[in-house]
Amino acid sequence: MIEFLEVDNLDTAIEKLYTECVKTVFATLQEEVLLLNSLDRILSEDLISEVEVPNFNRSTVDGYAVVASDTNAASDTVPVILNVVGSVEMGTEYKGRVNSSECVYVPTGGMIPDGAGAVVMIEDTEQISENKIVVYKSIGEGKNVVVSGDDVKKEDLILHKGKKITPYDIGLLSSVGIEKFKVYNKLNVTIISTGDELISDKENLSKGKVLDINSNLLESMAIENGLNVTGKYLLQDNEKDLENAIKNSIGSSDIILISGGSSKGKKDLTSFVIDKISSSGVLTHGIAIQPGKPTITSFDEKSKTMIIGLPGHPIASAILFRLVVLKVIDKIRKVSHRERTCTGILTENVPASQGRTTIQLVNIDDNFNIIPLFGKSGLIHRMSKSDGYILIDRNKEGYNKGEKVKVYYL
Amino acid sequence: MIEFLEVDNLDTAIEKLYTECVKTVFATLQEEVLLLNSLDRILSEDLISEVEVPNFNRSTVDGYAVVASDTNAASDTVPVILNVVGSVEMGTEYKGRVNSSECVYVPTGGMIPDGAGAVVMIEDTEQISENKIVVYKSIGEGKNVVVSGDDVKKEDLILHKGKKITPYDIGLLSSVGIEKFKVYNKLNVTIISTGDELISDKENLSKGKVLDINSNLLESMAIENGLNVTGKYLLQDNEKDLENAIKNSIGSSDIILISGGSSKGKKDLTSFVIDKISSSGVLTHGIAIQPGKPTITSFDEKSKTMIIGLPGHPIASAILFRLVVLKVIDKIRKVSHRERTCTGILTENVPASQGRTTIQLVNIDDNFNIIPLFGKSGLIHRMSKSDGYILIDRNKEGYNKGEKVKVYYL
Repeated sequence: MIEFLEVDNLDTAIEKLYTECVKTVFATLQEEVLLLNSLDRILSEDLISEVEVPNFNRSTVDGYAVVASDTNAASDTVPVILNVVGSVEMGTEYKGRVNSSECVYVPTGGMIPDGAGAVVMIEDTEQISENKIVVYKSIGEGKNVVVSGDDVKKEDLILHKGKKITPYDIGLLSSVGIEKFKVYNKLNVTIISTGDELISDKENLSKGKVLDINSNLLESMAIENGLNVTGKYLLQDNEKDLENAIKNSIGSSDIILISGGSSKGKKDLTSFVIDKISSSGVLTHGIAIQPGKPTITSFDEKSKTMIIGLPGHPIASAILFRLVVLKVIDKIRKVSHRERTCTGILTENVPASQGRTTIQLVNIDDNFNIIPLFGKSGLIHRMSKSDGYILIDRNKEGYNKGEKVKVYYL
Repeated sequence: MIEFLEVDNLDTAIEKLYTECVKTVFATLQEEVLLLNSLDRILSEDLISEVEVPNFNRSTVDGYAVVASDTNAASDTVPVILNVVGSVEMGTEYKGRVNSSECVYVPTGGMIPDGAGAVVMIEDTEQISENKIVVYKSIGEGKNVVVSGDDVKKEDLILHKGKKITPYDIGLLSSVGIEKFKVYNKLNVTIISTGDELISDKENLSKGKVLDINSNLLESMAIENGLNVTGKYLLQDNEKDLENAIKNSIGSSDIILISGGSSKGKKDLTSFVIDKISSSGVLTHGIAIQPGKPTITSFDEKSKTMIIGLPGHPIASAILFRLVVLKVIDKIRKVSHRERTCTGILTENVPASQGRTTIQLVNIDDNFNIIPLFGKSGLIHRMSKSDGYILIDRNKEGYNKGEKVKVYYL
């Protein structure tokens, strides 16, 4: 019971770790990248356009550039006759001018000549002689025209610091000719999986032994989230090995993840070693979250290394990595990226313990029914089959069947 | 009007292209990968476990393994006394047995000795002498025990052909010791961007010219979706160059994307050249979708190459690439991967034209209000700022403010 009081709420744990990390340059070093190498990287500077897009008035249809007011009286029964005085070539500047009673053919994307303020679609016209068309429709000023600067203006702040670069951002940056810029460095991660029961080779399976899940799980999650995995260890539970592994990694890593220690004895070992090595000591010794309680956080200021003890339970380990470690990095970098979430209706009651946040894996059907995946603690096959998870607030006793809940996609 | 009748509905276009592609080995060649190189790849075989997980009965808590019926009468006021006959070491087989009136200490993850059927949490016990504990709680058979095979049974089909490998799948495969398996080959894509107005270098911007967006946009989307980009061309609109580019690429590419041709003349050029080169001829010459109508599909059976004309309009080009090309590949490979979607309430009316599917970019706020991003056609900055898009069925005239809609995350 005393131990329970010592654990932190999830928000407190995040805040404590953030507060330590943010004092240093942790997660804020930058490097320059070329546009096509920037996918999924996080911008570390605001990007401003030096050009206008488009840099000329542009037609959005195939048709005739006209003085809009010339068409005021046009209709199916009383068309207006205009003189065709020219034709715009794609990709070239049209030097002539459109005066009243005149028009110029413009292809989609072509430049609107001076004097013209709208484009009549070719479908609303008819050619009646070599140089004359009739217009069957009245159109307003600006119709079918993208005006110079409509997409991007000069000096527009087009992407903010903290933006995670998508293919569409790469498209936008291409449109203004920005070819290189600064992004935050990829962080280096060392993953240490500990446990006397853990082995890596199927041939050595015997009663009492299990194949290690967490180092591969965390490695692939790290890669998926733009981190470099620079070291991996599979250790027995002993102080000396753990201490050596951390000491070996601390210089080359920004983050050290130590997974394992779901049992009391082991947790104390991880916590003891972290406390000994890290300048901050242990910041959080247990989080009020289920599963995921045996999570330990720490930040070594001297080496600027986040040292985190994650639960041995693979589901807890994966989600706490996301909820704490990745969250703090994003908070430091002020990352703006819409989290993939949805809402739906629960098909069953989901119990929860008041006083701690509950993580519940779920599936989502095509009608956004949210189906909880119950089962014994720690079964990895459930996570592989889940679409996402819900978080139940520590002040709630659970959700009832039929309640609307928010799901975080895995 | 006649032209309108010639276009295909989106579903028809997908079906026509699929039917051609599926006749050949298009998109179904396989290669073996190592587990840690398999992230985001598509499984091309069913994976069966050769082992049980766990392969012994395992405790989920720190506590005492007991004969469950021994605790039947236990309560806070009338505890049951048990003899501690041993202690399980993590990672080793416990050879002894638990008989009635006995118990053995087991750490979380440790092996449950023969004879024991449940584990009493240490919090519900008290040690009263070196070899005796009292138990304050009655527990049922199986409590706090993961039975051998609970997670995965021998011969279980653990991942289906067509599964897109997630970090959690990598965790699952680690748990059963599967270290290599077959996935579908990455497909090779050539991207051809055409347009007399297109340039790639900001220094050459002049009136009438625009910087090419689509080749970089499509390249980064292709990479994001697990394709290899093996060639890129930026061409003027002329038959000879386009024909040469396609012919040069057809041997080394599985997919050729030709973007551009939103104007009538250009569309005819792409279509004419595709028709000349591809064995299937043009399958779909325009799709009833807005934006995205000028989409052309084709499949050259001899070289097994999908040749696709995408619109010049960047938003249309990006979404049609997703809705047609990526969709057909996934359909051939029977990919099972939950699309990231959500539902929410529209904050404004969204008009649509009956007879064609309408694509509307949107933002999603924290309360799942869906905010349409209106604006002139083709502005790339809108796409960069969007969270996703909605599709309005061709049989609907649009959605009203307050209606519930489904959003596809970008």
